[in-house]
Amino acid sequence: MDGFYVIFFSGTGFAAVFINISVENFAGWKFSLTFKIIQKSYLAGCLIYILINLALVFSSVYIITQFAPAAAGSGIPEIKGYLNGIDIPGILLLRTLIGKIFGSIGSVGGGLALGKEGPLVHTGACIASLLGQGGSTKYHISSRWLQGFKSDRDRRDLVTCGCAAGVAAAFRAPVGGVLFSLEEVTSWWRSQLMWRVFFTSAIVAVVVRAAMGWCKSGNCGHFGSGGFIIWDISGGQEDYSFEELLPMAVIGVIGGLLGALFNQLTIYVTRWRRNYLHKKGNRVKIYEACLISVITSVISFGLPLLRKCSPCPDSDPASEIECPRAPGMYGNYVNFYCSKEKEYNDLATIFFNTQDDAIRNLFSAKTIHEFSAQSLLAFLVMFYTLAVITFGTAVPAGQFVPGIMIGSTYGRLVGIFTVNHYKKLNIEEGTYALLGAASFLGGSMRMTVSLCVIMVEITNNLKLLPLIMLVLLISKAVGDAFNEGLYEEQARLRGIPLLESRPKYEMRKMTAKEACRNQKVLSLPRVVKVADVVSILQSNKHNGFPVIDHTRNGETLVIGLMLRSHLLVLLQSKIDFQHSPLPCDPRGGPQGIRHNFSEFAKPVSSKGISINDIHLSSDDLEMYIDLAPFLNPSPYVVPEDMSLTKVYNIFRQLGLRHIFVVPRASRMIGVITRKDLLIEEETDSTAMELQSTSTLKLYRGLSFKSLRWLCANLKGGMRTIICLTNNVVCKSTCRHNSKNHSVLVLR
Amino acid sequence: MDGFYVIFFSGTGFAAVFINISVENFAGWKFSLTFKIIQKSYLAGCLIYILINLALVFSSVYIITQFAPAAAGSGIPEIKGYLNGIDIPGILLLRTLIGKIFGSIGSVGGGLALGKEGPLVHTGACIASLLGQGGSTKYHISSRWLQGFKSDRDRRDLVTCGCAAGVAAAFRAPVGGVLFSLEEVTSWWRSQLMWRVFFTSAIVAVVVRAAMGWCKSGNCGHFGSGGFIIWDISGGQEDYSFEELLPMAVIGVIGGLLGALFNQLTIYVTRWRRNYLHKKGNRVKIYEACLISVITSVISFGLPLLRKCSPCPDSDPASEIECPRAPGMYGNYVNFYCSKEKEYNDLATIFFNTQDDAIRNLFSAKTIHEFSAQSLLAFLVMFYTLAVITFGTAVPAGQFVPGIMIGSTYGRLVGIFTVNHYKKLNIEEGTYALLGAASFLGGSMRMTVSLCVIMVEITNNLKLLPLIMLVLLISKAVGDAFNEGLYEEQARLRGIPLLESRPKYEMRKMTAKEACRNQKVLSLPRVVKVADVVSILQSNKHNGFPVIDHTRNGETLVIGLMLRSHLLVLLQSKIDFQHSPLPCDPRGGPQGIRHNFSEFAKPVSSKGISINDIHLSSDDLEMYIDLAPFLNPSPYVVPEDMSLTKVYNIFRQLGLRHIFVVPRASRMIGVITRKDLLIEEETDSTAMELQSTSTLKLYRGLSFKSLRWLCANLKGGMRTIICLTNNVVCKSTCRHNSKNHSVLVLR
Repeated sequence: MDGFYVIFFSGTGFAAVFINISVENFAGWKFSLTFKIIQKSYLAGCLIYILINLALVFSSVYIITQFAPAAAGSGIPEIKGYLNGIDIPGILLLRTLIGKIFGSIGSVGGGLALGKEGPLVHTGACIASLLGQGGSTKYHISSRWLQGFKSDRDRRDLVTCGCAAGVAAAFRAPVGGVLFSLEEVTSWWRSQLMWRVFFTSAIVAVVVRAAMGWCKSGNCGHFGSGGFIIWDISGGQEDYSFEELLPMAVIGVIGGLLGALFNQLTIYVTRWRRNYLHKKGNRVKIYEACLISVITSVISFGLPLLRKCSPCPDSDPASEIECPRAPGMYGNYVNFYCSKEKEYNDLATIFFNTQDDAIRNLFSAKTIHEFSAQSLLAFLVMFYTLAVITFGTAVPAGQFVPGIMIGSTYGRLVGIFTVNHYKKLNIEEGTYALLGAASFLGGSMRMTVSLCVIMVEITNNLKLLPLIMLVLLISKAVGDAFNEGLYEEQARLRGIPLLESRPKYEMRKMTAKEACRNQKVLSLPRVVKVADVVSILQSNKHNGFPVIDHTRNGETLVIGLMLRSHLLVLLQSKIDFQHSPLPCDPRGGPQGIRHNFSEFAKPVSSKGISINDIHLSSDDLEMYIDLAPFLNPSPYVVPEDMSLTKVYNIFRQLGLRHIFVVPRASRMIGVITRKDLLIEEETDSTAMELQSTSTLKLYRGLSFKSLRWLCANLKGGMRTIICLTNNVVCKSTCRHNSKNHSVLVLR
Repeated sequence: MDGFYVIFFSGTGFAAVFINISVENFAGWKFSLTFKIIQKSYLAGCLIYILINLALVFSSVYIITQFAPAAAGSGIPEIKGYLNGIDIPGILLLRTLIGKIFGSIGSVGGGLALGKEGPLVHTGACIASLLGQGGSTKYHISSRWLQGFKSDRDRRDLVTCGCAAGVAAAFRAPVGGVLFSLEEVTSWWRSQLMWRVFFTSAIVAVVVRAAMGWCKSGNCGHFGSGGFIIWDISGGQEDYSFEELLPMAVIGVIGGLLGALFNQLTIYVTRWRRNYLHKKGNRVKIYEACLISVITSVISFGLPLLRKCSPCPDSDPASEIECPRAPGMYGNYVNFYCSKEKEYNDLATIFFNTQDDAIRNLFSAKTIHEFSAQSLLAFLVMFYTLAVITFGTAVPAGQFVPGIMIGSTYGRLVGIFTVNHYKKLNIEEGTYALLGAASFLGGSMRMTVSLCVIMVEITNNLKLLPLIMLVLLISKAVGDAFNEGLYEEQARLRGIPLLESRPKYEMRKMTAKEACRNQKVLSLPRVVKVADVVSILQSNKHNGFPVIDHTRNGETLVIGLMLRSHLLVLLQSKIDFQHSPLPCDPRGGPQGIRHNFSEFAKPVSSKGISINDIHLSSDDLEMYIDLAPFLNPSPYVVPEDMSLTKVYNIFRQLGLRHIFVVPRASRMIGVITRKDLLIEEETDSTAMELQSTSTLKLYRGLSFKSLRWLCANLKGGMRTIICLTNNVVCKSTCRHNSKNHSVLVLR
């Protein structure tokens, strides 16, 4: 299976590299073309720039609206919902994957205020899910070999790995990917999952690293200019003094406020879009995206034109930073609409640039006073507004990179004031830009550890780690005072009912009985008439039905849970129909053999069969089905007066879909404690017993290993072990005796 | 509460700084004294060296054996057990804390082959637990203010935070601390915990950083020579070629093999010690530790003497590495028993040195061919043996730093061969030493993400991250083929019955009933005679008892779970005794008021009261107690034929201590599904309903927020809402009506 993983997540790595290469080349080519043209005419350059952006954005929105509507947005709320146990139709299909890849190339390459990282997470999840079900069955790309991943839990684990792979590939941050998928995306933590996710990330990191090594020789155009660490700031500030903690705390507070405001504004915008705009159909969505593209292009081209150029700083011969930068290159100090030779336009340096390069410039060290406070403020206001209105258009859109842009802008603003105020030499504005970026993401997405690690991994400066942690603490705490995190809010808006990890406060006073008091319990008898099944399935939308049987002395007994989907499979296949209303003979062999296990497997994100699709003749309707071989014989139960908080915890922690509420028990069979669950560990305690008694009781379930240990360690006179009950493990080594006891004679 | 955390974990930070300062100064002073003496006489130097080490180790083992036996070893298996739900007496006491701090100063300062990091994790946990219970009650350092942390779960959360604080302080690795406590130590993951642990680590990092800033001015002697990043290798190898993956994979395999062997050998050594040596009392423990100290000193002093010195390499004027290093300084190229001026002893450079400096030398870049293969091999064999025999002596001992030592030695060995074979300039032996260290820790402790982050945080080279991940993957996979991780093996040896996250395979075929088939269920009636309680408590060691009551029509009903500890509190206080065998009047006010909640709180790690400590007169024995106010009314139940795997999952995932096994239910009250648990999300679905009906049912539990939303959004003709049942939320806004219904009239 591990070999399978390797092949598999290499796929995510390659998809990420493909997206990156495409985006960076489209954007790079666009800017170099525009720069070439504006040497002659600014108007022509502006037009070309707008048209290229429009074409890219149009292609993106066209793909999304016509071909893959589920690929719009970042996809993280949907994946979060899926891993929380909600099946959202369409999010993990092949067409969504294709739409996501090509859509995000268009939207990011087209210069909109959005990023490619969120879509890459969704891409990773799609690849994982598709390969996990052995390729898309619809497109006949299926492989028997891969069908081992049919269980629902395995598939959710794979999707978790896919998310990690997406982040690992998007940010070139493998550990950040692991933590992101564990902290933010997944709902059920298992320690085995940690290992798988880690494995995935490591493979993806190596694949991406290899691709970048290959690209170094110039095969990939503009791709990989940041290297494996995208925005390397390791040459910047190494140390900090304690006075700096104050401006840093200010950054944290600003981040919390602006992040919470961003979440709130996007809620309003999304709600307005949903209620007014997007009701009018796909055409409006296309117009909207194109309009936003034109606005974005005009602002990012026009605003720097209004800005007066600044003279270049006295160049330091030791520093490698040129001013103005050479045409067609990347870096700081862009000469854009400047009259003199030795001048640069600070607003164009960040606004009229790819987002990656703009962030690199904002983070850059040894460029004190490059940006004026007015330019930064203008950029902050414009870009923040653009990010808010772009959010929710029908294109694939991540919020990471816009968040970093916004955060690093006000971070650098605070940095300017700090440098001016403290007048120390070792303070770098770039450091503050980094902290600003962390604070905005913290204030908006409310992650902690994963964000912290991602920030360190993309900037390669471990010495700032304690500062990043502090800033994140403050911004998350401030943001939490106003609203929930971006993904939770968006999930709620999209009607994805996430179960949070903590039960609601009101549940403390409620009992399980009250939670289901308005239900009419629809239960099935063990042997049920087909017509009854059909009418029950048609009358409601429940996904699970209790099955109730009668014992010989007439008492009723809840014998298990029958899923709607399994009932539908039985109705469709018809092979289990029987004429007699009596239970089938259990000695007639297990009924399940007539069915392949995979028939009952849940389809990932198709709608599955519906009761209305199944056609039954009137003869069929008169027949019976014995449900006993197909039901889940031990569903989880809670007593009726259990506190709803406890019920919630069981439901959430175990990832359940149905809990049966039953009356209080009338008698006890036993109490299970830790020691009843420690099967193997009994060896040592049995060893203790050995010394006191010469006849030893072996309990059912004692493993062969323990038995072998016993044989090897018995030194004394004891030679006889009584196996209580004729149990599975002892059977083969024990001589049979009367009264359900076996006797094991050693040596 | 957050302010509380700050003060609190600053404590761990200061404890770590104190231990570090002490150890580094003791060791530094010891080595500089010895170096001073050996300028005159090697014999005298050797004697002094042995005696200082002996004195330090003796002080450590004396403290442990006489004062704090629970402070021996690393403490991580015990903490792991505590967080898994097992109370191990003594591990979180004040005396253990003190013993741990001073004991580890002695044992690490005394040059034994062990580290201070594991003990620091235990120290952090102790501080957390002690402050959480408001100081040690035994020593009367108690504060009312802190007693909010009385609940068992809160205390376990605090201890988890304490572990993170310990790692954060020990390695100056805050994110590594978070991940260590989440991956390795804790058993129950909750997302709130992540935030608290993160908070803790950030505070500790800032405290340690501040202390180091203060120490920079020379206040702390030798402390802090590594800075915040202990072994900085950022100046080393930046990049790697794909041919290097082969030797790196070899390192991973070696790490897995040597790590697994280490675990296996320590099992044998520990078992032998337990069965033969330590039975003979404390005196033998002291002799043993002193003997090992002398052996360690003799080997680490004597072995380098046998080694021929090597001539210094041609010095590169650009590099700052001196050869031989100046006397009394730290660094590579020690002149030890060398006849000529320009010579150094490579074995002394790593063996006759503090562990921190030895590792720094092994990791160091630009020192190719400093160490000969023979020296490294000799050191590897000797140090590995020393680490194995030192493991399990009665001193505080961590395995992190010895593991790094062992790993970096064979890593550097592989590095020598790689450099010789590939003959490329940019390959550094130090890189291989780092990978070797990661591989050994991975092969022995079997952690993944946390180890990876810790390695990056202590060495400050992010570019090697993908390599570290790969090496860890391989070494963990190889190690897992042989045995379990070091901490799990040690926990098992110490009889700590850890419940693993995955149920055993044999459980699949077992049912809950079978797991408790050999039990005699001892249940209590609701109103129980004191004499009966006493006899039941004396007759067994169960910690919980089911309580069974009779309904009016004579049926029995399991009404709850009564804990032994609560029964003991009731017996001791006697205020709830009553003469009548009838249930007390429930309208007489809640009985719990007679008791303070804290009376029932579980003591952390004292043994608690025993039934034999309680003295009851014969009059008392004739009285009755009504248990109804004190029992847990809704314990978790499972039906008797539920698969034991499922039972295990409930038990493990929810962190339970008792599960009741009851007969199958005879009827159903309802089925709880996701939508029954989504209380707040109803607003949107009610909005849909609004459009179709003009009378709306409000269900109990609908929140005020939803209600306000309703009032604000009701535009149409509907003005009346019927509140089903007189519920808490509606009550204040609803007009009361007949039949348990209220009517809410809007506006």
